[in-house]
Amino acid sequence: MGRARLRDLGISIGRLPTGPLNAITDVSGVLVGHCTVVWDAPRIARTGVTMVVPRSGAIWEDRTFAGHHSFNGNGEMTGLLWLEESGMLDGPIGITNTHAVGVVRDAIVAFGVERGYVQSFMLPVVAETYDGWLNDIGAFHVTRDHAFQALSAAREGAVAEGNVGGGTGMRCHEFKGGIGTSSRRIELPDRQYVVGALVQANYGRMADLRVDGAPVGRELAAIRESADPGDSGSIIVILATDAPLLPGQCRRLAQRATVGLARAGGFGFNSSGDIFLAFATGNHLPVRPVKSVDLRMLPNEQMDPFFQGAAESVEEAILNALTAAETMTGFRGTCPALPLAEVQAIMRRYRLSPGGSG
Amino acid sequence: MGRARLRDLGISIGRLPTGPLNAITDVSGVLVGHCTVVWDAPRIARTGVTMVVPRSGAIWEDRTFAGHHSFNGNGEMTGLLWLEESGMLDGPIGITNTHAVGVVRDAIVAFGVERGYVQSFMLPVVAETYDGWLNDIGAFHVTRDHAFQALSAAREGAVAEGNVGGGTGMRCHEFKGGIGTSSRRIELPDRQYVVGALVQANYGRMADLRVDGAPVGRELAAIRESADPGDSGSIIVILATDAPLLPGQCRRLAQRATVGLARAGGFGFNSSGDIFLAFATGNHLPVRPVKSVDLRMLPNEQMDPFFQGAAESVEEAILNALTAAETMTGFRGTCPALPLAEVQAIMRRYRLSPGGSG
Amino acid sequence: MGRARLRDLGISIGRLPTGPLNAITDVSGVLVGHCTVVWDAPRIARTGVTMVVPRSGAIWEDRTFAGHHSFNGNGEMTGLLWLEESGMLDGPIGITNTHAVGVVRDAIVAFGVERGYVQSFMLPVVAETYDGWLNDIGAFHVTRDHAFQALSAAREGAVAEGNVGGGTGMRCHEFKGGIGTSSRRIELPDRQYVVGALVQANYGRMADLRVDGAPVGRELAAIRESADPGDSGSIIVILATDAPLLPGQCRRLAQRATVGLARAGGFGFNSSGDIFLAFATGNHLPVRPVKSVDLRMLPNEQMDPFFQGAAESVEEAILNALTAAETMTGFRGTCPALPLAEVQAIMRRYRLSPGGSG
Amino acid sequence: MGRARLRDLGISIGRLPTGPLNAITDVSGVLVGHCTVVWDAPRIARTGVTMVVPRSGAIWEDRTFAGHHSFNGNGEMTGLLWLEESGMLDGPIGITNTHAVGVVRDAIVAFGVERGYVQSFMLPVVAETYDGWLNDIGAFHVTRDHAFQALSAAREGAVAEGNVGGGTGMRCHEFKGGIGTSSRRIELPDRQYVVGALVQANYGRMADLRVDGAPVGRELAAIRESADPGDSGSIIVILATDAPLLPGQCRRLAQRATVGLARAGGFGFNSSGDIFLAFATGNHLPVRPVKSVDLRMLPNEQMDPFFQGAAESVEEAILNALTAAETMTGFRGTCPALPLAEVQAIMRRYRLSPGGSG
Repeated sequence: MGRARLRDLGISIGRLPTGPLNAITDVSGVLVGHCTVVWDAPRIARTGVTMVVPRSGAIWEDRTFAGHHSFNGNGEMTGLLWLEESGMLDGPIGITNTHAVGVVRDAIVAFGVERGYVQSFMLPVVAETYDGWLNDIGAFHVTRDHAFQALSAAREGAVAEGNVGGGTGMRCHEFKGGIGTSSRRIELPDRQYVVGALVQANYGRMADLRVDGAPVGRELAAIRESADPGDSGSIIVILATDAPLLPGQCRRLAQRATVGLARAGGFGFNSSGDIFLAFATGNHLPVRPVKSVDLRMLPNEQMDPFFQGAAESVEEAILNALTAAETMTGFRGTCPALPLAEVQAIMRRYRLSPGGSG
Repeated sequence: MGRARLRDLGISIGRLPTGPLNAITDVSGVLVGHCTVVWDAPRIARTGVTMVVPRSGAIWEDRTFAGHHSFNGNGEMTGLLWLEESGMLDGPIGITNTHAVGVVRDAIVAFGVERGYVQSFMLPVVAETYDGWLNDIGAFHVTRDHAFQALSAAREGAVAEGNVGGGTGMRCHEFKGGIGTSSRRIELPDRQYVVGALVQANYGRMADLRVDGAPVGRELAAIRESADPGDSGSIIVILATDAPLLPGQCRRLAQRATVGLARAGGFGFNSSGDIFLAFATGNHLPVRPVKSVDLRMLPNEQMDPFFQGAAESVEEAILNALTAAETMTGFRGTCPALPLAEVQAIMRRYRLSPGGSG
Repeated sequence: MGRARLRDLGISIGRLPTGPLNAITDVSGVLVGHCTVVWDAPRIARTGVTMVVPRSGAIWEDRTFAGHHSFNGNGEMTGLLWLEESGMLDGPIGITNTHAVGVVRDAIVAFGVERGYVQSFMLPVVAETYDGWLNDIGAFHVTRDHAFQALSAAREGAVAEGNVGGGTGMRCHEFKGGIGTSSRRIELPDRQYVVGALVQANYGRMADLRVDGAPVGRELAAIRESADPGDSGSIIVILATDAPLLPGQCRRLAQRATVGLARAGGFGFNSSGDIFLAFATGNHLPVRPVKSVDLRMLPNEQMDPFFQGAAESVEEAILNALTAAETMTGFRGTCPALPLAEVQAIMRRYRLSPGGSG
Repeated sequence: MGRARLRDLGISIGRLPTGPLNAITDVSGVLVGHCTVVWDAPRIARTGVTMVVPRSGAIWEDRTFAGHHSFNGNGEMTGLLWLEESGMLDGPIGITNTHAVGVVRDAIVAFGVERGYVQSFMLPVVAETYDGWLNDIGAFHVTRDHAFQALSAAREGAVAEGNVGGGTGMRCHEFKGGIGTSSRRIELPDRQYVVGALVQANYGRMADLRVDGAPVGRELAAIRESADPGDSGSIIVILATDAPLLPGQCRRLAQRATVGLARAGGFGFNSSGDIFLAFATGNHLPVRPVKSVDLRMLPNEQMDPFFQGAAESVEEAILNALTAAETMTGFRGTCPALPLAEVQAIMRRYRLSPGGSG
């Protein structure tokens, strides 16, 4: 499950309370499954597939509203034309490496065809970041079967973070990155909701990393050699909530991932595919029968805590990816894990958590 | 009320039935008001303001979902940032000439402030087309009072077409244009709805005009001298429906105005501001209290007749503007009305209506 | 090469002259390659892949500006996030069936990796329409090798139309559809350009088909039984020009495909993926070295003939797909070809071409 | 000129060097003019107009490329439809209060008509934030003459910040806000450019304010009573650069204002109009003659320092607005200035600047 979570270090982000697992799976019915693909011969594999499956798998027959935001579109997320046109997500979300988007995309179609979910066609959502520094990506390791395994592995509960699934070979702020997650509770006058984030973090320069505002990356960069930064970082963010958001409100929520990313040290650099998707399970949208449906809508005037929750959970999910991920040796070399004790020391020095006044 | 409507000539567009008035006011609660500004001294005025007011004027306190589409954005429609962000329309829609957008926009704010509708601020929707060939637009004739008059004049029932309100000085396909309207009934298995269009038509070349597919403009252009076509045509389209469309569905509906415009002879030329807005009154969105609301949503799978109805009613509304508008002499010369008998003769020749096999 | 082209029937669309081939390949350097996949066992295949390759194949190293428009996004076109972010197209464009988007997408990556074009990663553009009525799409017939064959087959000159490549199993207005192409010459005061269109046409109801404005589909529907219309039509349009358009101007051009589609009888129905891409070869954008480049830009004020040319060539390309495609029997039955003699008779009756006054 | 600039306090943001003035006017030819409207009777005025005028006023005849981004569209910026369609800015940019957008918009048209710049029509860019807490906004104080004065006052050199022009009555993070500016030098291998920001800052909660990552607002909120936060904050950001960016690159630059805003403590709350515009003077786009123009284009691969520069200069411009603005008493009460000594003390405590290790 990774080395540590940020809060294990005495550090936390923001002011809203987390959900019980501090994970996207705090949103009821959201499942996460990983298939981790690691071998050394004949060609080095450090890659995989992660699936986010809403509605405990019933997403094929009961859609959710959804929306997306692209902060910098040097990446792929398939299925967005129909997601934006319809306002809906109608299947699981796949995340993998850049060269495996197609196979994972067709695999989701095949999975749906095999199980009878797909009557005519579907347009799956599959996103990617580039793991070609640790993974020999040109070997096209990922297969349909890996995608099926990730779908079959999808479950509730705590989410494995760091070097798992699609995040296996990813780097972030020149340290080992990968999968991270976090969540926030949203207390409205009449009800409580949850917003959760899952990231596949693979972007950024060491010197730009901030932890709760403290210039941790700048301090670390002063004493460490920079790795080959490469030129191909990216971050995929999936946001989920159980609130009754309409499609446009999901899009607005997705856009707030930018705030969390900016605070952790992201700029949306040119080579980065910083693409965010949000879905909301608070309404039911059965595929059949085709008839008008009754909905509930959160008023726009109550979106602010969701915006804050999205920003905070994305920022913390990125940091969780960094604290969980372990040093990995792969295709072109070794990518070090974020040095946790040093981070704690720097945080103390800046009197931010842990042990600071913040 | 103008010279004639297209159907008075024995010509009709499309296959869906019209509403009782064949006007945007067939959508319950939609009011239209015109203020026509015409004088010759000290400077020539051929202009005005048209207001479309949803919910019988209660739009200030009970919003509608709405969306827009820009086919060619060489024009202004204020208020779109918030309309798209919120998904809602929260006031009347003004249409006027290009230089009067600001005064009409602030006038709507002032109207709301005076009547106590605006507690802090609002962001009105005001659109325009350019009447500077018939109207001495640099004289800035339109005042706040004209906008107030158009709001006060808004009413149910048949809509004046042609040389009225914002359409007073407009030209279309090199003939006199202006305001036109049309509607279609949409029969679903369980319910009947209406979609209505109102256009301020001010675009196009004579040779491109088509009537129900017949190359009427090409025939007319062969025997008539072209007017100075100018370089500044545009068309504003307002679509309304009583169906329970969500914001994204309104946007989709607005986009189908392109079909009606294309079939009448529009290309979205560079100098044209072809901007379309659709709103749907089928859900109630009270400004107060701030709390979750219950909605109904038409399934996307039932949108097709609405798309067809939007296309047909826009095509016919453009032609109604042309058949209603009368020859006008103004700032730079005389703009002739569409010659109705010639149009009928051409339609017969092509065996389209009237009297043809179509 | 198909049965006939529209102009073989004495029918033409619009007023601008065509290029020498009346095909997208009139744009210098644009290659088209098809791989047609047809067999009856073990499961019925009526499908394939079409590739549009700019710059005579040098597109991998010398990009073009590009832009897209989605008229109705019930479909997939991968690669759009980066195409819109960068404003550029950097590889061949694939068109195939809905379930094969992934394999063709990854195949383009593999093709680039094998030939050394892809240093780190690429984000291919692959689009689709649904051929599941004639093709047993759930069999996932298309392989990487088919995509490679289509790339290898890409060449200059006349383009095979109808039941070829990605268009093999497509239906359009309830007749056999598929691939079609057309082009227009654009004469500016100082220079001549070309705009060309290629469509994979798979949308529409019989009764809505118009040929140069004549209600051909309505006439045919009166005397023919409707096929099972299905619910899954779509049209992909690729527009190319040799003019020096910037990315936003490419997007504008792509949007005008809507006009041609609307005039042929398209409404952008809910189940249709009507997605348009335009690229412009008039500027050179070498991948290396990374440095500022000199460009030329067509002024927006000269875009109108391009808009008209795009509309006309798309309308004619759709009709060329219909006149070229031959009756096909496949997975669920037989889809008849458009009856050419009947079309000619109808056109005469409406005194449009051939032999009419139009 | 305001009380202080952030760097006067020993605090700076980011790692890139500033331009000589640390202002948007470091971009050659960019002029800024303010008209400040303050009186107490008959109704209280605390408002004004700010104009940003590119090309030393020649913008009417030599356009710039431009693009925009809306982080949260609860606000108005007119002219965006044409700005995005054409990719160009063709006049001065006005910023004022929410109820004065129309009068300032029409005033720019009138200014252009009077001086002969406008032959037919123009579509001005005017943005706003809401000053209704300090300013009796329902009195509609701003007139065409105020807009003309701001245009006439536009000049090179240091820019007045704080309670001036459109920023006169604005509040930010519950302190007195208003106009702020900053700039960054961008060093490329072959050339040096500048990116500059001007903000009208009127958004945010006290507790969210961060200064270079330090939780200054949280510390201040612990010891100060919160003002009535109101519900209507916003921030307008204008970014300028002398680099040869294309329209899409301007849009990308504008989007990076989000990073600076997020780091200062913005979330894009629902009631906030957070709207960003960027223009680039590195190419010349004369209105006449209409003919193809030669351009230069910065490669996308060199955008990263511009993205960083935009983020840093926006963050610092917001803080400059806060450090410059003075306590103001107006319509509904008194809004305190940011307490500079306290801020310095907090920064020292967190060992960020001044005197810290950061």
